[in-house]
Amino acid sequence: MKLARCTYNGADAFWAVVDPAQDQATPILGEFSTWAPAVARGAGISALRFAGPPLPLSKMRFLPPIEPVNRVVVAGANYTKHLAEDFGLKAPAQPVAFLKAYGALIGAHDPIRYPPLTDKLDHEVELVAVIGSHEVDLDDPLSCVLGYTVGNDVSARDLQLSGPPGIGMDLFAAKSQDRTTGLGPWIVTRDEFPHRSPILRLTLKVNGETRQDGSTGDMTWGVDELISFVQQRSSFACGDVLFTGSPAGVGMGTGVFLNPGDIVEASIERLGTLRNVVGEKPVRPIGKQA
Amino acid sequence: MKLARCTYNGADAFWAVVDPAQDQATPILGEFSTWAPAVARGAGISALRFAGPPLPLSKMRFLPPIEPVNRVVVAGANYTKHLAEDFGLKAPAQPVAFLKAYGALIGAHDPIRYPPLTDKLDHEVELVAVIGSHEVDLDDPLSCVLGYTVGNDVSARDLQLSGPPGIGMDLFAAKSQDRTTGLGPWIVTRDEFPHRSPILRLTLKVNGETRQDGSTGDMTWGVDELISFVQQRSSFACGDVLFTGSPAGVGMGTGVFLNPGDIVEASIERLGTLRNVVGEKPVRPIGKQA
Repeated sequence: MKLARCTYNGADAFWAVVDPAQDQATPILGEFSTWAPAVARGAGISALRFAGPPLPLSKMRFLPPIEPVNRVVVAGANYTKHLAEDFGLKAPAQPVAFLKAYGALIGAHDPIRYPPLTDKLDHEVELVAVIGSHEVDLDDPLSCVLGYTVGNDVSARDLQLSGPPGIGMDLFAAKSQDRTTGLGPWIVTRDEFPHRSPILRLTLKVNGETRQDGSTGDMTWGVDELISFVQQRSSFACGDVLFTGSPAGVGMGTGVFLNPGDIVEASIERLGTLRNVVGEKPVRPIGKQA
Repeated sequence: MKLARCTYNGADAFWAVVDPAQDQATPILGEFSTWAPAVARGAGISALRFAGPPLPLSKMRFLPPIEPVNRVVVAGANYTKHLAEDFGLKAPAQPVAFLKAYGALIGAHDPIRYPPLTDKLDHEVELVAVIGSHEVDLDDPLSCVLGYTVGNDVSARDLQLSGPPGIGMDLFAAKSQDRTTGLGPWIVTRDEFPHRSPILRLTLKVNGETRQDGSTGDMTWGVDELISFVQQRSSFACGDVLFTGSPAGVGMGTGVFLNPGDIVEASIERLGTLRNVVGEKPVRPIGKQA
């Protein structure tokens, strides 16, 4: 089952069960936090009540599949080759997690804003787990997962490396820039996958050219281990999302960054594709940068 | 004017104008985001409509004065002596900002949860600015400030230093632990201060003994500069709060950390005092820590 957060003719956001083959989006009745736990427990479509007949999916705008009250948690440093080739770093003994601003998110087909303070805008395709439970069972962390979606953790690399010595990377400046991070197009529910950390091919293309091509099977820590790691540091709420790191091939390693007009396609097999076009680079107002 | 977010007899949270001398809390009608901009512009109490007569303030529980949909931004590395004495670091060329989880917040008199993964729990009294506008004017950043409150950015120092080499401090594990960060008791509106970054004495006592005693006048970057720095990296929304760094004297420098039962009082002159007691240290479940 595919669950999307949509808007239609500029009206309020709503959740829907979507069927791309039939061009249908059927609006779900009630709050996400009331129906998501039953779906996460495997009740499937029987857990849902609908607010009306199907609408034409092709007329919808996809919003990021997360409510504004929820957190975007990113657990990085999870692909050894990405760390080695792109950053010259050894595999760490544990993951690193941080929070991304909700305002950084865009939907599956929205433009990527080019932030004014950067000259090195980069892409990172990532498997994203969506938490669908009010509790996390550390003995079975995957049981709290509602499903999976696709993320593109667009990063300003020059700002990422501008952090103070001794404190470290400035992940806030790099990864919380307004309207840069693609998320969607929908959540594929966990009941469509074996009960383990999913093993899926993930690719990122720029103007049709493949830049990243990896497998979530190469993650150092599986989705279950990342959930457990984060949960013990700061508890998940129902509806929070967890980015799980990106494979090698980003501009940080190749020196090839994103440019205005680039068509960026982040895909994960069985999940879907984000297709976002990079916007114009704004002129920096003199004296305004800090 | 003092604005608090309260709960009374376990009912829903509400905002109120509070008068501690008269033991009064008068509930405000309407959403924060509808009335806060007028108050931030200086309209004072005339911008508010009330939902009923005053309630006894002494019967209220103070909640953190921020809605769950808002962000907690922390701009650190802002007191040279704290960096030098407590971390052995030089003053950086620019601030560092990061996000704190909303779930880390507690009210002015709530217990501080002792997180299970740490043995070095520390305090950080901080001036906190509350954003009250939907737009930030970079030519006059203070004009977006609704007012100021007191924060205690309680930090797990061993986890802070557990981040991977080359990436840096683990500020998420250190500073987003559930129910650790005091915020409140109320917002004192900006119209009570001169139109500049406030110069106020801030102190932190543990069991009556002064551990931190500084002045916000010693901040490397004023509130206006920090707002501008953050805004250019990730936009503020009305209701977001900004922690502005802590002066010297924390356990990281002295080796004296917080213990269960400690009474922690964080005070800023003209703003108020947080009084939080450190809870029991839980037994770590074997094999559960990541």
